[in-house]
Amino acid sequence: ELLVKVQDFLLPKPLLAGKKIAITAGPTREALDPVRYISNHSSGKMGFALAAEAARMGAEVTLISGPVNLATPAGCQRVDVTSAEQMLDAALAVAAEQDVFIGCAAVADYRAANIASQKMKKQGEQLSIELVKNPDIIATVAAQTDSTFVVGFAAETQQIEQYARGKLASKGLDMIAANDVSNGNIGFNADDNALTVYWLDGQQAIEQANKQQVAAQLLQLIQQQIQP
Amino acid sequence: ELLVKVQDFLLPKPLLAGKKIAITAGPTREALDPVRYISNHSSGKMGFALAAEAARMGAEVTLISGPVNLATPAGCQRVDVTSAEQMLDAALAVAAEQDVFIGCAAVADYRAANIASQKMKKQGEQLSIELVKNPDIIATVAAQTDSTFVVGFAAETQQIEQYARGKLASKGLDMIAANDVSNGNIGFNADDNALTVYWLDGQQAIEQANKQQVAAQLLQLIQQQIQP
Repeated sequence: ELLVKVQDFLLPKPLLAGKKIAITAGPTREALDPVRYISNHSSGKMGFALAAEAARMGAEVTLISGPVNLATPAGCQRVDVTSAEQMLDAALAVAAEQDVFIGCAAVADYRAANIASQKMKKQGEQLSIELVKNPDIIATVAAQTDSTFVVGFAAETQQIEQYARGKLASKGLDMIAANDVSNGNIGFNADDNALTVYWLDGQQAIEQANKQQVAAQLLQLIQQQIQP
Repeated sequence: ELLVKVQDFLLPKPLLAGKKIAITAGPTREALDPVRYISNHSSGKMGFALAAEAARMGAEVTLISGPVNLATPAGCQRVDVTSAEQMLDAALAVAAEQDVFIGCAAVADYRAANIASQKMKKQGEQLSIELVKNPDIIATVAAQTDSTFVVGFAAETQQIEQYARGKLASKGLDMIAANDVSNGNIGFNADDNALTVYWLDGQQAIEQANKQQVAAQLLQLIQQQIQP
């Protein structure tokens, strides 16, 4: 405790001290029936790295996580969810009181129009599944908050900047971090990532590095933007 | 080593010594595009418990596993696969030389008719995905092997015996182990399981217990049936 007090006195205040940051992470799973679901290859590593790094930088972190196999980073409050609708509820419950909201989860765009209450039996050689669009969590958070700085992620395989800037505008975000998931060295299950970060009047590339280092750089960019 | 030799001399021969057993485990994942897939809630725990127990009982075990987060049991040779088609290839590569083949994997019934090479962009409020039936791995193994004792699993939520006996006959299996996945205490992500095991002229309930104990009892039933 004495050491902590001496450190508090001698060291500069952590970059995100006093800031509240909520981060979504991982995939969502959308049930088709009691046993089957649609999901995606998000490992949650990037969102968990952001949460760990934000906590290390002094922020009060809420980590809203889909189904992943990762330990909760030190100092983070974790809320576990499964579907996109559950993630939206958890996000809206805390978004307005945050300084920063980062939507890093790979939310399923669509869910089953009707979830079968019994396991679907095999039918013919072909099967058509009807899906309906899920709520857009990051756009909903951006629309329902005033002072929260809202950061989205865009996982793309082509025309990265065009799609990322399109989402920045159409979803009403303050910043968007785009990565090219067609590059197998980075992205979903990799330990490394590389981002290009866009905001209204600027952009910044974050070169390939491990996700912890990429997270630290992204949080520094965010901190520069939310400085008064 | 001396201890092992003394044990070999003093202890009865392990129940499955000299037997070759292949076991499929876990879910399969069927890609919709580079980031999305259809899968199911199989944890792989039951198949891995069977593999561990079979090895402990002296068998030479090949464990063909879909994507799971489980360590390879001691003494088992592991083959990792993702899709049902990959699992079928891995199964057929070894099935004919096995004494026993146990299909414990929760193989996806259907895969996408066309896998998009780029991430699908969000379209309208609704989306229809066209699926085609996957190969039936356990039925194909049963049809393409003569002397292999083929054991299937049936995860059902209703009319358990009717569906299980139907599959036993239609797939040409020697034995089928049915569990009721509508019971949340057992099944996919639980540590416990309970089975009802059917073969042509008999059946046996295996009461709820941890999956290791259930695996040992199922292997004993199999061993009784393959005795000359």
